[in-house]
Amino acid sequence: MIIIGIDPGIAIVGYGVVKLTGNKFEVLDYGAITTESKMAFPNRLKIIYNKMTEIIDKYSPTDLAMEELFFNKNVKTAIKVGQARGVEILAAVNKGVEIYEYTPLQIKQAVVGYGRADKNQVQEMVKMLLNLKEIPKPDDVADALAVALCHGNSLKFKEMFRMK
Amino acid sequence: MIIIGIDPGIAIVGYGVVKLTGNKFEVLDYGAITTESKMAFPNRLKIIYNKMTEIIDKYSPTDLAMEELFFNKNVKTAIKVGQARGVEILAAVNKGVEIYEYTPLQIKQAVVGYGRADKNQVQEMVKMLLNLKEIPKPDDVADALAVALCHGNSLKFKEMFRMK
Repeated sequence: MIIIGIDPGIAIVGYGVVKLTGNKFEVLDYGAITTESKMAFPNRLKIIYNKMTEIIDKYSPTDLAMEELFFNKNVKTAIKVGQARGVEILAAVNKGVEIYEYTPLQIKQAVVGYGRADKNQVQEMVKMLLNLKEIPKPDDVADALAVALCHGNSLKFKEMFRMK
Repeated sequence: MIIIGIDPGIAIVGYGVVKLTGNKFEVLDYGAITTESKMAFPNRLKIIYNKMTEIIDKYSPTDLAMEELFFNKNVKTAIKVGQARGVEILAAVNKGVEIYEYTPLQIKQAVVGYGRADKNQVQEMVKMLLNLKEIPKPDDVADALAVALCHGNSLKFKEMFRMK
């Protein structure tokens, strides 16, 4: 099966596409969709939607995995990122891709084996599990691959994580 | 010119389509897109996007006007509504519709003539300006028509209100 992981955002959307055969992961693609802050917001949403659609068309993932969005202070930023996230979800659902959400704790547990792992440990595991020469940059890309791996490792329980 | 006003949301999206000729408004359509809370969130986004696209295709508005989103407490709700709002913006920008935002104060000033007008005064003005027999229900629909009227009355300054 093919899984796309994304790290949602408006300036940068990290994505990672992995193929899972048995319990072996293979990376198909990863990178970042970026939009410039000087561009009008609606056009940034349009670019993100179109690029997401392109990637989904190219790899035909069945599942999309993303981190649960959590903000504790800046509501303005939350709304902005929320708007972008809505478009990212739409691009997937419009192509029949199922959407799953994981907390940071669940991602660390699934990828590293314990929930208190730090960012660097998660990134090292991503590199190792996917046989990459280097840790993907920027962090958004490594995070997107991590949540894709998390989903691949959680398939037995995936109904628990389906976006409601 | 044709203007669509919307009151963004996930459970209910109010919309109102008005035609402005000179300084005379004519209502073309109004109503609400609704989605059920028991439906999965991504599917709710899909329904909203499709219905928005249908309405835009039917009336070909050049401009979409909406209230600026503002929340002061519940960040979880802000994210949810933000996600829906992103999809609503996308439906418009994908059809080449320009997007404008107004604060509640600006809407009241433009529709009633002063910024401290209450909800009922705004609704009465919407009814009067559009020659409606009754105040449209629910409030989301009246609010959508109000922001469309606000935009129609603010055309000289509209560049100030273009979504950035």
